[in-house]
Amino acid sequence: MKVVIAIDSFKGSVSSMAASTEIAAGINKVYPEADNVILPLADGGEGTVEALVSATGGQIRSVQVTGPLQQPVQASYGILGNGLTAVIEVAAACGLPLVPVEHRNPLRTTTYGVGELILDAIGQGCREFVIGLGGSATNDAGIGMLQALGYRFTDEAGNDAGHGGEALLRIRSIDAAHACPELGQCVFKIACDVDNPLYGPDGAAYVFGPQKGASPEMVEVLDEGLAGFAGVVQRAFGVNVQNIPGAGAAGGLGAAFAVFLQGKLQSGVGLVLDIIGMEEKLHGAHIVITGEGRLDGQTSMGKAPSGVARLAQKHGIPVIALAGGVTKEASGLNDLGITSFFSIVNGPVSLEQAMEPDEARYNLRRTAEQLFRLIQAVSPGCNNDNNAGDKGNRA
Amino acid sequence: MKVVIAIDSFKGSVSSMAASTEIAAGINKVYPEADNVILPLADGGEGTVEALVSATGGQIRSVQVTGPLQQPVQASYGILGNGLTAVIEVAAACGLPLVPVEHRNPLRTTTYGVGELILDAIGQGCREFVIGLGGSATNDAGIGMLQALGYRFTDEAGNDAGHGGEALLRIRSIDAAHACPELGQCVFKIACDVDNPLYGPDGAAYVFGPQKGASPEMVEVLDEGLAGFAGVVQRAFGVNVQNIPGAGAAGGLGAAFAVFLQGKLQSGVGLVLDIIGMEEKLHGAHIVITGEGRLDGQTSMGKAPSGVARLAQKHGIPVIALAGGVTKEASGLNDLGITSFFSIVNGPVSLEQAMEPDEARYNLRRTAEQLFRLIQAVSPGCNNDNNAGDKGNRA
Repeated sequence: MKVVIAIDSFKGSVSSMAASTEIAAGINKVYPEADNVILPLADGGEGTVEALVSATGGQIRSVQVTGPLQQPVQASYGILGNGLTAVIEVAAACGLPLVPVEHRNPLRTTTYGVGELILDAIGQGCREFVIGLGGSATNDAGIGMLQALGYRFTDEAGNDAGHGGEALLRIRSIDAAHACPELGQCVFKIACDVDNPLYGPDGAAYVFGPQKGASPEMVEVLDEGLAGFAGVVQRAFGVNVQNIPGAGAAGGLGAAFAVFLQGKLQSGVGLVLDIIGMEEKLHGAHIVITGEGRLDGQTSMGKAPSGVARLAQKHGIPVIALAGGVTKEASGLNDLGITSFFSIVNGPVSLEQAMEPDEARYNLRRTAEQLFRLIQAVSPGCNNDNNAGDKGNRA
Repeated sequence: MKVVIAIDSFKGSVSSMAASTEIAAGINKVYPEADNVILPLADGGEGTVEALVSATGGQIRSVQVTGPLQQPVQASYGILGNGLTAVIEVAAACGLPLVPVEHRNPLRTTTYGVGELILDAIGQGCREFVIGLGGSATNDAGIGMLQALGYRFTDEAGNDAGHGGEALLRIRSIDAAHACPELGQCVFKIACDVDNPLYGPDGAAYVFGPQKGASPEMVEVLDEGLAGFAGVVQRAFGVNVQNIPGAGAAGGLGAAFAVFLQGKLQSGVGLVLDIIGMEEKLHGAHIVITGEGRLDGQTSMGKAPSGVARLAQKHGIPVIALAGGVTKEASGLNDLGITSFFSIVNGPVSLEQAMEPDEARYNLRRTAEQLFRLIQAVSPGCNNDNNAGDKGNRA
């Protein structure tokens, strides 16, 4: 009996690792010899660095960089166990929480710190990058990051165009002569779960500008800047950045990664599953356990459990999803490869009590044990490890 | 795929039949051709008449009889679909709720009405009786019932000994000459989940007398009466009634059934399972579903789900128990033949909301569907109805 356990954290209650450990304990009460493969899970958003570092035995690094308002901030990123791959959540260097509400102004905020994190990682020997977009306070199309990496953006007079979203309107040419030479050896994988274009009604400024502090007038200026920058990019590289879905993510940082750093924008879950080697780990598995704090209609839209289910379905492996709560909309998950989903609570209980870590851990263990008792009873062949691959394919 | 559904009511929320119907609907979403056998369940206590009448397509009959205080009361009993078997809960004719608290006095209360119910059923053609003891307001060793059936109990002077617990002390001889002749054709099956003897420290008067309104002095008189009556019975029939476990049930009514009517005292659940033909219905079943409102430490002690589990275990059939809530003590159920148990709630929720009938019904259906999706995925052979018997035995 081989079981792959890839469950997201139950936010505010138990971590991905703690949940996995309890599930494994429940399985082992039924199948003491079970091969439980635990893969901490994330969706490219908050918690991704922690999950991937923990999954690979890597380390967290903390460095001082330039914050969104050009103030110094302390930002963390991860280096995976291979010593080659850096995992950066851009919010660590240019996130909304780093800007007090009264100072939020995407005409001025910069992604410069993101570039500094990349440089630091290059200095540490990293050549592969996993970047989590999302949560940025910026709308600078990534020019801040690129400036930190050595790119120069100049105005009509050949002078430096400056920082922030307001600089975009002034840019007339791009100078890559002094860009960090190691960038040529680097591969960028971008976790991006929005497909907004760079500019226009569905673009970065109109859709995300307001939540970053932009007034309607500022949104117009920002959008004009993004469109103008797209024109400069088109002339310089022959690339129509507007055709890249997700270019508008993180205030246009998506565009910068895609065009300047040849980054591949992909679903956050898919990227995380890639990094943790999910598909390979599924080989010979009888059952996959996934889940998160709450399974609902959102779960199907790019969140971690549905990504796990998609891969498992491809290999014909049954997937059990566990959650604190499941809404009626969760029934759509059955169409996405989740064989069965269950709430772990043991009866009527308050949200507070259900989230109490000891209670949640006990419920995870008990639910796993009871489910595997049932599996054992109805599927006697699963006792026989020699049937592993066979079983998985038939299921 | 054959599934036997034998689930107790979720008291205050959904009936046994409604719960079964929802579970069957959930199963049919996965196995449209499933053979779902629904058996309404009870444990010999309250609700037994309703469950058995409903399980067999019988009818409820309501008649006026003599109440515990000799007042007229309207009492109901069931006649099963075979037209031959009457199901009587003795509390309907001599139950505690029929006596106002201030009039509770087991020296006087009589089981006469129970005998009248039996006579009525005999008049209806019934020759088999299922009797639920429990909840009586009496301590008359069943002499009231026997008097109604034509027995005479006389004192030293040959006069009628009278009614109630206080009459027992006066009885010197028993006259069966005028007993209802059809009793000889009748078979009595008694649902009895206590094993108290007729008299003594563990007997009817000491253990159950106080809750029926007996003072400590009354308890002594009652116990003396029961012991004296046992002596009379011994001389008349050569039977030591004190050796019969359960003779002390329902104020000694157990003794009357055992000695005078050759009744067989057995566990309530076991008896109900007998009547509904559980063991026969299990033939070829892949899965049994049972449960009740709450699964806890009590469930293992003679309650319905554990009785179902015991039979299913004997035939090697996996048993799933569903409940509104499961306590930590429920884990003992796994040792009693319950393969797996689950709460049906879908997350943190108040008791009130969980018991709301629509909510409970939805949760039963969803839980059954998700469990059978899992069963289908891990046990592909169950799709093949030809494997039925085989599967059941292997599991």
